[in-house]
Amino acid sequence: MTHALRPPVGAIILTGFMGTGKSAVAELLSRRWGLETVDTDAMIKEQVGASIAEIFATRGEQHFRDLETDILTQLAEQRGLIISTGGGMLLREHNVELLRQMGPIICLHASAETIMERTAASSERPLLNKPDPQTEIQQLLAERDAAYQQADYHIATDELSVEQAAEAVAEAMRADPRGCLLAPEPVEIPVELGDDSYTIHIGKGLLEAVGEIAAPDQRGQRAALITDDNLVELYGSVVAESLERVGWDVALFAVPSGEGSKTLATAGQLCDQLAEAGFDRSSVVFAVGGGMVGDLAGFVAAVFMRGLEFVQVPTTLLAQVDASVGGKVAVDLPRAKNLVGAFHQPRAVIIDTNTLETLPERQLCSGLAEVIKHAAIADEAMFGYLEENLERLEKRDPVCLKYVLARNCQIKAEVVAADPHEQGQRAVLNFGHTIGHALERAAPQWQLSHGEAIAVGMVAESEVAVEKELSEPDVVERLRRLITQAGLQPDLAGIDPQQAGTAMSADKKLRGGRLRLPVVPRIGQVVLTDQIQLTDLREALVRLLE
Amino acid sequence: MTHALRPPVGAIILTGFMGTGKSAVAELLSRRWGLETVDTDAMIKEQVGASIAEIFATRGEQHFRDLETDILTQLAEQRGLIISTGGGMLLREHNVELLRQMGPIICLHASAETIMERTAASSERPLLNKPDPQTEIQQLLAERDAAYQQADYHIATDELSVEQAAEAVAEAMRADPRGCLLAPEPVEIPVELGDDSYTIHIGKGLLEAVGEIAAPDQRGQRAALITDDNLVELYGSVVAESLERVGWDVALFAVPSGEGSKTLATAGQLCDQLAEAGFDRSSVVFAVGGGMVGDLAGFVAAVFMRGLEFVQVPTTLLAQVDASVGGKVAVDLPRAKNLVGAFHQPRAVIIDTNTLETLPERQLCSGLAEVIKHAAIADEAMFGYLEENLERLEKRDPVCLKYVLARNCQIKAEVVAADPHEQGQRAVLNFGHTIGHALERAAPQWQLSHGEAIAVGMVAESEVAVEKELSEPDVVERLRRLITQAGLQPDLAGIDPQQAGTAMSADKKLRGGRLRLPVVPRIGQVVLTDQIQLTDLREALVRLLE
Repeated sequence: MTHALRPPVGAIILTGFMGTGKSAVAELLSRRWGLETVDTDAMIKEQVGASIAEIFATRGEQHFRDLETDILTQLAEQRGLIISTGGGMLLREHNVELLRQMGPIICLHASAETIMERTAASSERPLLNKPDPQTEIQQLLAERDAAYQQADYHIATDELSVEQAAEAVAEAMRADPRGCLLAPEPVEIPVELGDDSYTIHIGKGLLEAVGEIAAPDQRGQRAALITDDNLVELYGSVVAESLERVGWDVALFAVPSGEGSKTLATAGQLCDQLAEAGFDRSSVVFAVGGGMVGDLAGFVAAVFMRGLEFVQVPTTLLAQVDASVGGKVAVDLPRAKNLVGAFHQPRAVIIDTNTLETLPERQLCSGLAEVIKHAAIADEAMFGYLEENLERLEKRDPVCLKYVLARNCQIKAEVVAADPHEQGQRAVLNFGHTIGHALERAAPQWQLSHGEAIAVGMVAESEVAVEKELSEPDVVERLRRLITQAGLQPDLAGIDPQQAGTAMSADKKLRGGRLRLPVVPRIGQVVLTDQIQLTDLREALVRLLE
Repeated sequence: MTHALRPPVGAIILTGFMGTGKSAVAELLSRRWGLETVDTDAMIKEQVGASIAEIFATRGEQHFRDLETDILTQLAEQRGLIISTGGGMLLREHNVELLRQMGPIICLHASAETIMERTAASSERPLLNKPDPQTEIQQLLAERDAAYQQADYHIATDELSVEQAAEAVAEAMRADPRGCLLAPEPVEIPVELGDDSYTIHIGKGLLEAVGEIAAPDQRGQRAALITDDNLVELYGSVVAESLERVGWDVALFAVPSGEGSKTLATAGQLCDQLAEAGFDRSSVVFAVGGGMVGDLAGFVAAVFMRGLEFVQVPTTLLAQVDASVGGKVAVDLPRAKNLVGAFHQPRAVIIDTNTLETLPERQLCSGLAEVIKHAAIADEAMFGYLEENLERLEKRDPVCLKYVLARNCQIKAEVVAADPHEQGQRAVLNFGHTIGHALERAAPQWQLSHGEAIAVGMVAESEVAVEKELSEPDVVERLRRLITQAGLQPDLAGIDPQQAGTAMSADKKLRGGRLRLPVVPRIGQVVLTDQIQLTDLREALVRLLE
């Protein structure tokens, strides 16, 4: 998937002349993909209580098109459908508009001869009860050609079996920036980093497929699966089994859960355990867990014997949309977080949307702040989607999760690919982080999640940008509304303004010279500016806390 | 210097017709380079007690050429000369041969007109006391042209001042694979690694020039100078001052000397100290010391804030010819050495040959084993040079040191450039290391230096290779003779054969499959072979220790 993913749709629409295979393909696909199938003709028949031929005969074509419009309006809010339409559906402009909003339109085509052959047995086709049906069909095909051309995809089915036609549709949908989200297959996001390129796989149930995805048939190759003690049973063993199924020789290492394990000492212990167990430079590290596990295991992979390959299997929203993309691995020192680390790109990232089903609310919210940040700096359409579908996300709707995860990874992957070692443009990812980090450091422990701090930071920094006329006022309003909706409204009482100001001045990003601050001029865009001074941000921070 | 360096020569030879500037250029250059200058005509005059004109007049040209041959034979063993010869020196084939062995021959040229002008005032030129000297000169130039063409370099001096001519000679010599070793300038060895390319600078007194070489005019840029507590006074402060002179802001960090400091804990402490002192990603680490300091400081540079630039200033022979080239940095774990590390290429390597003047004998010897290894696998000429000049090296002769260091770095740089992440061909550097490492691990502490172990390993592995008809017997003989000469004959008593065998089987390089062992078929060449089994090496090891 190299095009920008677009908000997920409710349906995949199959249209085309009668006899091109719409209904058969729709049914086969619906069975394979586990989606409901809907036939607009059948719905009309049922709702009106008359056959299509009768409706045409007694009420005329215009009335039939009205009925089709009604049906589409009824279907508009539904999700996860495969719709097959009547052959004349695209003849009415308004119906085309309604369909476009519902999803990608695939038109199946066939020659008049094929259609004659396929429909010979049917008496239910009103337009064919004519003296010379083949000429009639040819004429109708010619008349409707312009209408059919409005579809997004075209597939000629003359030479195809139903199975082949269904596969052709599936293939088109897997590559479609909206349709792929309904397909059961994982979405694959490439991260383009030359020799270090890799793919992010996002889908339902992928924990069980880690072995297949990471590398099938690795008979005897050694895998070090690093996780935390909370996740060993839940995820660790699932991934281990999946690896063993394709021949990996797996050893499982669990560290105590929590940021307290992200130290040089733990990294050293893990390296020692790997050495004791006889791991060598041909072994592969699998990191299964949240950000802590990914950072720690990634660091171990970066330095053990000067570097092993590793695979990230992030299991929290924050790790999935942020830490797992970009190759930044690290451990903390008592003085500050992430002070010792490396840039070490994974061989693959595998994200199972199922892991989010059990993720506690507050952890989901914390990840949402980074999701909102990515939308704000890079994708107005995703921002709009979040405004309308946050509830769906909070309910862990699989298609919605797949879209949000995939689009976020895609945005971050693009930024990272342009600046893998964080020497310039990658700074746009720090939107909200200057004030956010200062709050995080100054707050009493546990009072603020990372996401809450960043959320407050995005709004506060954007307020300063609006004052300086660098952002539209709309940016602050929409951000504030969305983070409120996302439950990212922390209690800031008890954070000392003075201490927060000091923390900000100590920020390593701000040392030695000009501040290059990311600001969002309008939702979906970002620029780095030197028009905002550290003192402006300090004032904003103090205002926020007083 | 991109051509292979060749063993250093005793002299730079300036020749050419009278009036082309030989003597003046030789004198100027000798003053600048601190070398002795010798004029063959002057020597003859002094030894014979007659002027050249008189010798020509009374004894004839052939006799004069004999005298020249005598002089060259006298000079052959001397070192560090700039020789200016009589204008007809190259006319005798045998003299040319003698000169070639002494050093590069530079012929200065000028037109007959220029020569007339420059020599008008002189009465000491026997060939010019003719009625039409200019025609005479033209004729002689034509006659001698073929002889002059035998020189290695040609410089037309008609338009040049003496200073300009001397500079032209100096420039040619700085680029000459033998002449550059006599020049006072550092030799520069490029390490070609794409974006990670850097230069190794080798010369006398370079500690005081680290600032100039690493980057002049770094006003305010921060340098973390890491060394050990034995070297702070001796070298650390010299390098610090050199950096401060060109504007760096230097902080000095000294760890306890010895391998005991090469730990994750010390690395963590250094990172914490760097953070406390406010170092950031724009700072540069300077590693001043032996292999331990280079590995530790390099590892700190690799991981602090995910990577700072660093400059290696190695001060032991072993670090200079081995550890400082290739970007391998690491710390030890209690279980094994170098288990945690990275590939992190330095920005530059700066080697001061003066540091070897105070290096203890045993440390010099330990480094010599790697020197001999590089010669054995890649350069028969260097091997031959070592056989003849080891005493000179042990006396720390500066030109000899410069050659040995530079050529070693060049050999290692070539291997590393072809395989920066040690995935294949770089294994040739392990010649002697399979048996050597096993001995090192099995020996009681301090009994064996790394160099001694490797030296024994090279001989023992080559003996196996000779048995298998993979090496010429000559290889073992020459290796044994040279390492004996170098004082690399350790006492192996007390090393348990069984324990050494076990240590070899545990070697991480040998795990999981076929042994790819470097063997030297003849001195100066190396191949990786799978014709030798681990059991063959174990037998050889046991034989060695029983």
